Amino acid sequence: MKTAKIGVMIGDPGGIGPEVSVKALLAAASRQDGDAVLVGDVAAVEAAARAVGANLPVVAVETPEEARGRAIIPVIACGALQAGDFEIGKPSAASGRAVKAWMDRASALSQQGVLDGWIMGPINTQSMRMARVVEDLDDLQPKDTFMLRMSGPLRVVPIGEHLRIRDIAASVTHERICHVARLADRHLRRWGLDTPRLAVAGLNPHAMFEEDSDIIAPAVEALRAEGLTIEGPISPDSVFRKCIEGNYDAIVSMYHDQGQIALKTAAFEGACTVYLGLDYVHLSVPHGTAFDIAGKGFAQHGSMTAAIRTASMLASGRGFLAPTDTQGEAR
Amino acid sequence: MKTAKIGVMIGDPGGIGPEVSVKALLAAASRQDGDAVLVGDVAAVEAAARAVGANLPVVAVETPEEARGRAIIPVIACGALQAGDFEIGKPSAASGRAVKAWMDRASALSQQGVLDGWIMGPINTQSMRMARVVEDLDDLQPKDTFMLRMSGPLRVVPIGEHLRIRDIAASVTHERICHVARLADRHLRRWGLDTPRLAVAGLNPHAMFEEDSDIIAPAVEALRAEGLTIEGPISPDSVFRKCIEGNYDAIVSMYHDQGQIALKTAAFEGACTVYLGLDYVHLSVPHGTAFDIAGKGFAQHGSMTAAIRTASMLASGRGFLAPTDTQGEAR
Repeated sequence: MKTAKIGVMIGDPGGIGPEVSVKALLAAASRQDGDAVLVGDVAAVEAAARAVGANLPVVAVETPEEARGRAIIPVIACGALQAGDFEIGKPSAASGRAVKAWMDRASALSQQGVLDGWIMGPINTQSMRMARVVEDLDDLQPKDTFMLRMSGPLRVVPIGEHLRIRDIAASVTHERICHVARLADRHLRRWGLDTPRLAVAGLNPHAMFEEDSDIIAPAVEALRAEGLTIEGPISPDSVFRKCIEGNYDAIVSMYHDQGQIALKTAAFEGACTVYLGLDYVHLSVPHGTAFDIAGKGFAQHGSMTAAIRTASMLASGRGFLAPTDTQGEAR
Repeated sequence: MKTAKIGVMIGDPGGIGPEVSVKALLAAASRQDGDAVLVGDVAAVEAAARAVGANLPVVAVETPEEARGRAIIPVIACGALQAGDFEIGKPSAASGRAVKAWMDRASALSQQGVLDGWIMGPINTQSMRMARVVEDLDDLQPKDTFMLRMSGPLRVVPIGEHLRIRDIAASVTHERICHVARLADRHLRRWGLDTPRLAVAGLNPHAMFEEDSDIIAPAVEALRAEGLTIEGPISPDSVFRKCIEGNYDAIVSMYHDQGQIALKTAAFEGACTVYLGLDYVHLSVPHGTAFDIAGKGFAQHGSMTAAIRTASMLASGRGFLAPTDTQGEAR
């Protein structure tokens, strides 16, 4: 069994990211979930380690292998942050610039194979804007990728993101449905599922209007003819419950809120997002920087722990966490 | 405390409606949930009582008061069904005609005050079509009413029903939002909530597009100026979770699937639908006739039991069931 090398980008150094990253890294090490290493800044990680009462030395490394078997908190650092330039609990341009540098580093290392994937810790919109490194937070999503959001047994990838409701119908095309379904199928196979069982949600109530029969149904037929195990269009108000009950491995949804309402209402533990369309595993955690409790050591690291375990499993082709497995040591 | 007089229309006589109605009626009687009485046919109820092993005599009555304190299964009957005209487990024109007659009778008795409300047992589309009593099942919804769907702590009323996604944006108007919110507020007060806490869902992702700011926000402002306790627009992907966590008594949603995805994914026990816009309480249960198991006595009556209890509480101004209370004797 391959041991996955996972980078954890610690997120905005002013937020809870460094703390939850340290706690989750130690939890992952004790479970032997793979070779996880932080990506960020040594001083910021040292401060976080103090905040959470972790006594291991924080050591700069170049690769995850360097840390193997050593009782350390390993950090791939790139000198992008000066101690006096930011404050715990506040956004800053320095934090935003550092985050962008760490993201680029983690991506580059993943492309080079030094890492098998990386996790995006919680970043802050304000810091990113102050740093002027992005126009829009949506720009931080890697180009041409689609987000597969996971929460317990629910896994949903929408064919589009923040569209207005009035623009959705026009976005539902044969090409787009086929592209996203093929991407999902290919990734799920790579991650260890032999025969991914996909469902395509209908667009309209009970999947019983024109787009459902004229666009979605033929797309599903075409995908089935290609060899995919796929059903649809399934009524939008029942497809997510069916997934929870174990009938599907992932759902292709027709718009942002269709899946997000299901995911955030069901609210299983250990939610995270994985990007489809990259050669490596790239996840992000669904919580923010929580500046109000940053630096205090009690931020919960359940999401980050689940993200590390999920990334390790996917990168080594062992499939998804069992739903019951996303809880456990979550606190 | 007023004792509510609730009619239970037994639903299609070929389905599980009569069985679950008998079982739920007996459960309601043992809990003294109000004066419940069946509306249907004596012979059909006798057959259902035999199927579920209920030994009480089935007795035709004219009013719920006639049954008070008597160990009977009371039925308000109106001679609309002949024994040989239908078969358990199958749809039929006779069943459809009988259901329509019972519905009309239950509505009339509720309008006259003989009943404080009535519950619609499970009916069958095919029977209704064979009887040619309705063109479309949607026509069975009382005119000018809106459906408040309840499932555990979630209560959602959409401003429209089965619209195509492409037609939704145009349906979101100031007038419609205000009308539905006022209806909800008025009914919740009548049902026993002192200060109903309402939320209005946004239309678009994160409630951050034109209709959200230009139509929904001003409507909510206007409603607040009228004295309603109401918030919105709230991001569609978080408003339902907030309701589950106890922040709202009901949500006004912008389209069918927005609420239905939340309700059916969360899938709490004891779901039912209550109509806004009538002078009496009118509920329906969310399950079908289940012809395949009809007449066998093992259909679960949890939904009907919750519906009777909910109808009794609303009609006597005691508010909604506590979320934990919708389970319990459900089987």
